[in-house]
Amino acid sequence: MRLFAREGYAAVSMRQIAGEVGVQAGALYNYTPDKQTLLFDLMKAHMDDLLTAWEAEAAPEHPLEALERFARFHIRFNTERADAVFVSYMELRNLSPKNFEVIEGLRRRYEDQLEHILRRGVALGLFDVAEPKITTMAVIAMLTGVNTWFRDGGRLSLPDVETIYWDMVRRAVTPEPAANRG
Amino acid sequence: MRLFAREGYAAVSMRQIAGEVGVQAGALYNYTPDKQTLLFDLMKAHMDDLLTAWEAEAAPEHPLEALERFARFHIRFNTERADAVFVSYMELRNLSPKNFEVIEGLRRRYEDQLEHILRRGVALGLFDVAEPKITTMAVIAMLTGVNTWFRDGGRLSLPDVETIYWDMVRRAVTPEPAANRG
Repeated sequence: MRLFAREGYAAVSMRQIAGEVGVQAGALYNYTPDKQTLLFDLMKAHMDDLLTAWEAEAAPEHPLEALERFARFHIRFNTERADAVFVSYMELRNLSPKNFEVIEGLRRRYEDQLEHILRRGVALGLFDVAEPKITTMAVIAMLTGVNTWFRDGGRLSLPDVETIYWDMVRRAVTPEPAANRG
Repeated sequence: MRLFAREGYAAVSMRQIAGEVGVQAGALYNYTPDKQTLLFDLMKAHMDDLLTAWEAEAAPEHPLEALERFARFHIRFNTERADAVFVSYMELRNLSPKNFEVIEGLRRRYEDQLEHILRRGVALGLFDVAEPKITTMAVIAMLTGVNTWFRDGGRLSLPDVETIYWDMVRRAVTPEPAANRG
């Protein structure tokens, strides 16, 4: 994953990968039949981990609490796996059509978790969201963006950053006073 | 730019680029000394275009109006240049340190435009933003994310999408009723 992130899938050879993990080039084929399968397995493992970890969060029933849980979880999970997140976005174009479909399906399953929270909040009158699917994409893009600038040991801790983003997400989806509108 | 976006900088040869633009491999060197310079020139031209186009918007004085102008502009500019946006993000790692510094400087100049709008809005009591730099990064990530899903000819037009995102941005930065807090 580190090699793919640093050099790009197309530029990395199986020989290089073997060298990085410390096996003979030939022995690598005991673990994976080819580079495409290796890329797919890495991306699928990342998405499986993401879905399993989110399930383990056992999000609260209340949509506002569930949304906070999701926002904090997404930031934490992704900042811990910067290489995997970068590769998962960047190398979609290098997946075979069949592999792409599987990864896209898993990604949609994850997005559906957030969309479901938003729709429940709307149904309960807690959220004011006209297009839950679009808000889902917007919130995920915003939260994943933490990876482009956050570095451990800076002025703000990760929990501080989570709180700032959660505050923005909450305000973006909850009803506002009439005075602010239009 | 299209070749770099589709195959990745490292995987594309000068010969391929020459073929794509319809010149002899040798003739390409009349236009650029090497692939690194070509990547840098493409990324720099993209950032220069972005800064020039934003300047031409002549954003209104009022921070709320300026922020709306920025949100709509950013979405419009980036969706029209999906390849350039993708390459600009993905190939940062392939820039030489000196070239990276130039591109990062231009990117910061663009981010500063938004941060300046946010700080003016805070100073006038129009915005409630504790960390303008972080909100800048969050808003830009959210808006750029439109590129990952928007396709022309879908149910929503680009102006519709702009309005939905602007609404989220506005709510995320404007003061909220006391009842929503905590």
